[in-house]
Amino acid sequence: MKLLLICIIISLSILFSNGQDQSLNLVPYPQSVTNYWTTVSIQPSGFSIQSNSASLTLAVAIKRYSALMFPFGEGNGTSGSTTLQITVSSSNEDLFLGVDESYQLSTSSSSSFSIQSNTIYGAMRGLETFKQLMVYDLSNNEYFLSQCSISDYPRFPWRGFMIDTARHYYPVDAILHMIDSLGYNKFNVLHWHIVDAVAWPVVSSTYPQLTDAAYAPSAVYSHSEIQQVVAYAKTYGIRVVPEFDIPGHAASWGVGYPDVVATCPAYAGNVNNIPLDISNPATYTFIENLFTEIVPLFPDQYFHTGGDEVVLQCWSDDPAIQSWMTKNGYNTVTAEQYFESQLDTILQKLNRTKLIWNDPIDNGCDIIKSAIVQVWNSDTDSQTILDDGYKILVSFDWYLDKQDPTGDIHYEWQDTWQDFYNADPYNNISSHTQNILGGEATMWSEQVSHVNWDVRVWPRTIGIGERLWSDQSINSVDDALPRIELYSCDLSRRGIASGPLTPGDYCPLPTDLAYTLKPVMHIDSKTLLEIYNSF
Amino acid sequence: MKLLLICIIISLSILFSNGQDQSLNLVPYPQSVTNYWTTVSIQPSGFSIQSNSASLTLAVAIKRYSALMFPFGEGNGTSGSTTLQITVSSSNEDLFLGVDESYQLSTSSSSSFSIQSNTIYGAMRGLETFKQLMVYDLSNNEYFLSQCSISDYPRFPWRGFMIDTARHYYPVDAILHMIDSLGYNKFNVLHWHIVDAVAWPVVSSTYPQLTDAAYAPSAVYSHSEIQQVVAYAKTYGIRVVPEFDIPGHAASWGVGYPDVVATCPAYAGNVNNIPLDISNPATYTFIENLFTEIVPLFPDQYFHTGGDEVVLQCWSDDPAIQSWMTKNGYNTVTAEQYFESQLDTILQKLNRTKLIWNDPIDNGCDIIKSAIVQVWNSDTDSQTILDDGYKILVSFDWYLDKQDPTGDIHYEWQDTWQDFYNADPYNNISSHTQNILGGEATMWSEQVSHVNWDVRVWPRTIGIGERLWSDQSINSVDDALPRIELYSCDLSRRGIASGPLTPGDYCPLPTDLAYTLKPVMHIDSKTLLEIYNSF
Repeated sequence: MKLLLICIIISLSILFSNGQDQSLNLVPYPQSVTNYWTTVSIQPSGFSIQSNSASLTLAVAIKRYSALMFPFGEGNGTSGSTTLQITVSSSNEDLFLGVDESYQLSTSSSSSFSIQSNTIYGAMRGLETFKQLMVYDLSNNEYFLSQCSISDYPRFPWRGFMIDTARHYYPVDAILHMIDSLGYNKFNVLHWHIVDAVAWPVVSSTYPQLTDAAYAPSAVYSHSEIQQVVAYAKTYGIRVVPEFDIPGHAASWGVGYPDVVATCPAYAGNVNNIPLDISNPATYTFIENLFTEIVPLFPDQYFHTGGDEVVLQCWSDDPAIQSWMTKNGYNTVTAEQYFESQLDTILQKLNRTKLIWNDPIDNGCDIIKSAIVQVWNSDTDSQTILDDGYKILVSFDWYLDKQDPTGDIHYEWQDTWQDFYNADPYNNISSHTQNILGGEATMWSEQVSHVNWDVRVWPRTIGIGERLWSDQSINSVDDALPRIELYSCDLSRRGIASGPLTPGDYCPLPTDLAYTLKPVMHIDSKTLLEIYNSF
Repeated sequence: MKLLLICIIISLSILFSNGQDQSLNLVPYPQSVTNYWTTVSIQPSGFSIQSNSASLTLAVAIKRYSALMFPFGEGNGTSGSTTLQITVSSSNEDLFLGVDESYQLSTSSSSSFSIQSNTIYGAMRGLETFKQLMVYDLSNNEYFLSQCSISDYPRFPWRGFMIDTARHYYPVDAILHMIDSLGYNKFNVLHWHIVDAVAWPVVSSTYPQLTDAAYAPSAVYSHSEIQQVVAYAKTYGIRVVPEFDIPGHAASWGVGYPDVVATCPAYAGNVNNIPLDISNPATYTFIENLFTEIVPLFPDQYFHTGGDEVVLQCWSDDPAIQSWMTKNGYNTVTAEQYFESQLDTILQKLNRTKLIWNDPIDNGCDIIKSAIVQVWNSDTDSQTILDDGYKILVSFDWYLDKQDPTGDIHYEWQDTWQDFYNADPYNNISSHTQNILGGEATMWSEQVSHVNWDVRVWPRTIGIGERLWSDQSINSVDDALPRIELYSCDLSRRGIASGPLTPGDYCPLPTDLAYTLKPVMHIDSKTLLEIYNSF
């Protein structure tokens, strides 16, 4: 009864909140929706998904959504046989920045529904939307499909999420789980910050001692495991862009190969302070050999070389590097510039385009113009770098680790989702917005392992996914809240530990969900009664 | 290798940090420890726990710790047969405020270890400490028991944690899981904020329509389930103190029984605003009948009647209540006082002692002196209420839901654990400290369900447990951090989703843990390779 009341309130709040039609509970909200305000009662056992595509990748996605569609099993639906027909016009599976992700979806018929797309990736986005249209009514144990027509495409081509497998090691299965959650939210880039100062978990046959800086012999990623992650991500249309952060944050390189890092005892108290020795020609040979082995594992065109937080003074403190700088007439900035230029030569040989944090540009380096710059500093920095002619990704207001991500303080910690939602990449940008490719949320893992990743990321990141996909006009926290609340429940029913944002909602879960809390040891009710009676 | 290095660093940091010996990785740190700096290699299959006690309650606790002791199964231990002998001197199992929880523990022998206590509850605390002395060495797959002598007892007799099953409904199994985590951390009170304005999940045979305000017919607690929770908590020496928050936050009472709540349309926009109708004699009959049914389910002496955030003006807005106040010469405060006095009469009949939030005293009510006052306002309020002669519980700096619980802002959200740790109940209190019985952490559930409870609560609450148990001099964040970090890993190996506080630690988990992240659908490696090769 109460649930029904809440549903009505939510529906009304969506309907009358403002001019923008957000009448269906969809996240991220599609570009164009015609809501017919009717539903079809769906019988799970009569439902099937068919496709004209021979793609194995899409077949996996279809199989997955078929399994997800009815979390509570067979219900009391009355539709008999129903079909979702997927029609993909191109057999080209290339996955790249800017790939066509558009789709058309129709559920106006009572028995035959359709998704049409140019690519398999558009079909995947449509499948997610279709899943969200399938609503479970607990009171009647019945699934209803909302009837509508949708035409949809993303606002930004780069909708990324950064994971950090250096501060803590995530097992491969955990990364696949994270990809599940990102795919559901229509993210399309996994930015894999794979190594950092504190650990090096990537197996290298060229330089096997790099994994001396792994947490344990088993806490590493083999080539085969990396390929599995890349392939798994493809089944969600997610590109995997690795980051090897240099020349700073390089202490882990030095564990097995001390010669490639700088020596500056005054800065050694913080492991993040140690950069590569950029004066040593052997360092560049090392990077080239290593990247020649590793880079081809990641088929994407873009390769993130970090460049953030280089402690330039460490180079001045190292006598050999200082001597090299003096001899070549470099200061620390022109030395950094030299390093970046050498790196460009290596990347060119490997046919990869550089992605880099904003720091070298802030330092005054003249970074190659083909680079994409990820801005983690401020919107002012975004504008400056856009004015310099770069394409950028926006991240500065999407740091999930921070206590006050944007400077706003709420009563409840979890309400920081609102700050993330309000952080439009266009905010305070006056020109060159066409060079904003999108953005990335970042989950730095100083205090995050696979034990708490889900809850730290969800539901707060749902709104970031919407900001990156939906039209700029879909920007009201009040309008988004009820949709995000219901979607968070949907995610939790798929095994993503995404909690609530509002008091008083009720999201019963299938009993077999992995994270369902249980007592550590079952005590039978007879024993418990005996203990109770001993009071 | 790296792990070993980290362990050495942690050990050294503990050893040399300050004068207080914190050389063993125990949380909360015991009152007195003699560390012999040696270990015994334990063979799991040869280990057993024996007890002189006939207590079924203790037998359950022993069985549980036996199952928890070796999370990775049989290892390479060399000790052969070893025994932990538990000797309890009293057969009295009464569980009450101030029950003896002290214990003596010795692991100085190489094969026979001991816990001695006066009560089964002391033995349970000793079992937890013993579990923490059993350290797993991943590299050798071997368990080592640290050798020491410990004499321990709690600083405060009331070490509570509040859960809120009104803003979201927690299934009973989830509550048992929460009790597990609290018991491990030596909390001894579960403050069950069981109903509130937004929902009423307690089954009542006297007033069956109260559960009209439950989220669903199945989202309720039966008498039998309440008894199971109370009995389960006893196996950890945890008292269950229920809260029925009146006269404010009473909207849920009015869903099935509209006559017992006040009518004030101007305040109806917030469900939390509606109090009981304190002018109606039927309200008191209702409370008495209801409590006569419900209170005996909870054997504890203390019963929390809330009293917080009463919107006094609502009474003035209700013509019938205003008329009653005028007739009796009451203002809203003396009216509140009248209500509390009537409540005292009911509690006296039921032989229960009142526990109450600080608000009525702040309003100027003369609350019964036997009441314990839970202070959620400020330390200034604590001092005032202590000066008034009350015993108090401190909660104001332990609100786990807040973005900035104490006004301090860290870079990382999770570092709010430090604020909680620094919040000693004696801070800024100049007199009557002997009347501070302890305190309670609170996890209000506006944005928390059983989906995200673990991660919102742990590891941040570990330090609150230490503040309430350990000597006041154990108060350094720097000293506590490495112990808490290792204990958080220990908790996660028991199935509590408690993440890390520092970068660079490594906590491998048993593979069968419930919350271990897995992809939603397994894709075989052959298929993944085929997809990878399609790039």
